Amino acid sequence: MAGGEAKKPNAGGKKKEVKKETGLGLTNKKDENFGEWYSEVVVNGEMIEYYDISGCYILRPWTMSIWETMQEFFDAEIKKMKVKNCYFPLFVSSTVLEKEKDHIEGFAPEVAWVTRSGKSELEVPVAIRPTSETVMYPYYSKWIRGHRDLPLRLNQWCNVVRWEFSNPTPFIRSREFLWQEGHTAFATKDEADEEVLQILELYRRIYEEFLAIPVIKGKKSELEKFAGGLYTTSVEAYIPNTGRGVQGATSHCLGQNFAKMFEISFENEKGEKAMVWQNSWAYSTRTIGVMVMVHGDDKGLVLPPKVASVQVIVVPVPYKDANTQGIFDACTETVNTLSEAGIRAEADFRDNYSPGWKYSHWEMKGVPLRIEIGPKDLANNQVRAVRRDNSAKVDIPRASLVEQVKELLGNIQQNLFDVAKQKRDACVEIVKTWEEFIAALGKKKLILAPWCDEEEVEKDVKARTKGEMGAAKTLCSPFDQPELPEGTLCFASGKAAKKWTYWGRSY
Amino acid sequence: MAGGEAKKPNAGGKKKEVKKETGLGLTNKKDENFGEWYSEVVVNGEMIEYYDISGCYILRPWTMSIWETMQEFFDAEIKKMKVKNCYFPLFVSSTVLEKEKDHIEGFAPEVAWVTRSGKSELEVPVAIRPTSETVMYPYYSKWIRGHRDLPLRLNQWCNVVRWEFSNPTPFIRSREFLWQEGHTAFATKDEADEEVLQILELYRRIYEEFLAIPVIKGKKSELEKFAGGLYTTSVEAYIPNTGRGVQGATSHCLGQNFAKMFEISFENEKGEKAMVWQNSWAYSTRTIGVMVMVHGDDKGLVLPPKVASVQVIVVPVPYKDANTQGIFDACTETVNTLSEAGIRAEADFRDNYSPGWKYSHWEMKGVPLRIEIGPKDLANNQVRAVRRDNSAKVDIPRASLVEQVKELLGNIQQNLFDVAKQKRDACVEIVKTWEEFIAALGKKKLILAPWCDEEEVEKDVKARTKGEMGAAKTLCSPFDQPELPEGTLCFASGKAAKKWTYWGRSY
Repeated sequence: MAGGEAKKPNAGGKKKEVKKETGLGLTNKKDENFGEWYSEVVVNGEMIEYYDISGCYILRPWTMSIWETMQEFFDAEIKKMKVKNCYFPLFVSSTVLEKEKDHIEGFAPEVAWVTRSGKSELEVPVAIRPTSETVMYPYYSKWIRGHRDLPLRLNQWCNVVRWEFSNPTPFIRSREFLWQEGHTAFATKDEADEEVLQILELYRRIYEEFLAIPVIKGKKSELEKFAGGLYTTSVEAYIPNTGRGVQGATSHCLGQNFAKMFEISFENEKGEKAMVWQNSWAYSTRTIGVMVMVHGDDKGLVLPPKVASVQVIVVPVPYKDANTQGIFDACTETVNTLSEAGIRAEADFRDNYSPGWKYSHWEMKGVPLRIEIGPKDLANNQVRAVRRDNSAKVDIPRASLVEQVKELLGNIQQNLFDVAKQKRDACVEIVKTWEEFIAALGKKKLILAPWCDEEEVEKDVKARTKGEMGAAKTLCSPFDQPELPEGTLCFASGKAAKKWTYWGRSY
Repeated sequence: MAGGEAKKPNAGGKKKEVKKETGLGLTNKKDENFGEWYSEVVVNGEMIEYYDISGCYILRPWTMSIWETMQEFFDAEIKKMKVKNCYFPLFVSSTVLEKEKDHIEGFAPEVAWVTRSGKSELEVPVAIRPTSETVMYPYYSKWIRGHRDLPLRLNQWCNVVRWEFSNPTPFIRSREFLWQEGHTAFATKDEADEEVLQILELYRRIYEEFLAIPVIKGKKSELEKFAGGLYTTSVEAYIPNTGRGVQGATSHCLGQNFAKMFEISFENEKGEKAMVWQNSWAYSTRTIGVMVMVHGDDKGLVLPPKVASVQVIVVPVPYKDANTQGIFDACTETVNTLSEAGIRAEADFRDNYSPGWKYSHWEMKGVPLRIEIGPKDLANNQVRAVRRDNSAKVDIPRASLVEQVKELLGNIQQNLFDVAKQKRDACVEIVKTWEEFIAALGKKKLILAPWCDEEEVEKDVKARTKGEMGAAKTLCSPFDQPELPEGTLCFASGKAAKKWTYWGRSY
């Protein structure tokens, strides 16, 4: 609670409980103690409530409306690709879960087991899905007989559980989270490869077009790929404050590995038996955490207009002797005009808060644009607009309200992306030697280095950088590769480099 | 597998694998062995796949699109009522779960417990939500301080788990199911009472307007109300084949009971401390099972047009020397014309199935309207439309395709409702004595009887009708009460009757 004197309630009569203007701000600063700032901003911005079971969080309406906006976009896009929605059970039996060895090795320590119902022990414990490959694929085997049954493209929106014990963080690392998981089967590898990238492009659009966050498309290393898959592609975001990469979403080609384990074969056009090629792909509520981390500031959340459930908040600013009713009417009319134009606008008419308190409140919640209407605005037939992203103020004649607000919201969306990209790009450091690598890691950089692409070398880098803050690892090898002059050596092993790869600590 | 000779594949050359026209039908008949018929139709209609954990079912795309249609309607309606979506955790700790005694008594035997993660025993086991009252209300207590925080109206779309052991049935009684659960808090009982009925009306519309199923709105008895609530309202459907009622959806007023347990109080406008009034309300994927049971027939599913993901299936019927390409083009054009008019239409161009096989296939899947296009139709610039509900055939000039198809789909929707209502109404029997009651129960009737409304009497009726098929119980006391002449006696106790109540066996 920062200083400043509390307003005293008016004496006598019917007192309005005008709240103190202090006590609303954040006690932590983003650049000083990022972790505490993040916990505070997701709670004070009313996105998250901490729950009495560690690692589980309540997603409040302010969060869900963002999730639903992204869901609407993605669901419509995959339906255009002829993906269909389904719902498979939450539970999976141990025999099925353990069928694919690499896969279960990757997930086993985090699997939650139901062993009891009421007061009775279950005869056989059942696992809660950490992901649904093993839940679904026994049925793919049943449903797929001939080439005409292919492609089979299913998706589900659901919750999954990974009972992790390390560092739970709202949105970013939680024991239960919401996601979509797509699971597809094709007759040929080419079709599977093509879909992997189509989906990855949708994930890029979610980050860049909706959440205004720049991401890097690339391929994961062997060590970091999906357990049991053939190769993994991802979009990688970066949090400048912590210098950590964050895997934004993944689109995996599973190859024929699961097909073999689960006997998913089909008769091809020549009448021969063949194995299907499979993909799986997912993005989760983690997206929202990345958004908070990238755009938030010391005043609270900063929401990109495209995902904000309230894009414009209208605040009346009455003065003692002013025409209060006129101001209120102008606010209502402003909201109506904007709403009719498809802009998500609301007015805050509460009489127990001062305008200043309301400014702080809606700044905390990250509403992209605030419109203030006071006596002067009323007299001039204008409104005052204040941007959340850069605090810029502009007076808008009410006659051109819709166009100017639309333009402003577009500018805010673009500016958030541009600023985030600038900050991210400023953190990229190209290194060629181990010394440079260690120095860059110390400066929390997003490191781009020539690499020999050998699993043992990545393990070695991890071992050599182990420490309190976690080891460095590969984030991805970007599809957009800079030139790699012949003779370039791997920064870590000194062997011939095969590709440029991003390295860093990560979430 | 019914009789009939399989078509032999053409000799020589590139043989097309034209499938047998037999083997597609159902082996069970709805009126002969209803239970087996139901299991068969949900599987063969590709709505459900049985899962390797008993009581869990896979919801296939044919099911999910129906669920999504209802969800879109209901979600938009509750948003108009200012209800907001949220998401609370799947897990609940035992101390919180057990806080409301009546409530936990109702659910305890069915609660699934997670006791282990990976190979480690959890220090404290956690329960999986069977419903979310106890998950949510500790936070309502935190969020609600003053009258300005009310009403608080939240909803979530999620999965819940009730580990029942009796008679799992797809959609109707499963260990995991999908639903929405609304949880609201008000300053006054009047507001809560009003919302209970607003929501119940939405549930009626889902059944009657979307699923074409007549339901009875009413109030549950004390014995049958929600555990821990004040009173429960429901929409009750009825399955003539089994003579069982089925609780379609429930809208509960919880009163102040949970508010007391969870200390959900607020400062009212007079500055006094008061307890909130709460509601909770839910409908689930059970709706879809009721739809299958009511409308399905011996050829398979029958989907009401409003919820069918494919409303019109277009089947080309080429003959040997006919203009096959012309027929195919006409089919494509028909689909395009209908789609542009907002009708969900698809064509089945598969070359390895005969038209007859396709008819059976789409009848099994319940598509409301089939359009056939053969050489004669092509010549006459018409299509032949065949209704799924009553097999009526009509030739439609292509010039008036859209209007006539729209009208037909409207008629089908209405006819399904009318027929279902007629069948249900024919099963209603008014009884006044115990003898009449027992006779009606034996005839699987939906029994309307004058009742004294005493809990002990309902318990007694249950005890006296116990048997293989389950005991009779109250379904609801309809809001629409017939006249109850003074001096009418309770059919069961002989005491003065207080109201008319529906009785029967139920799901």
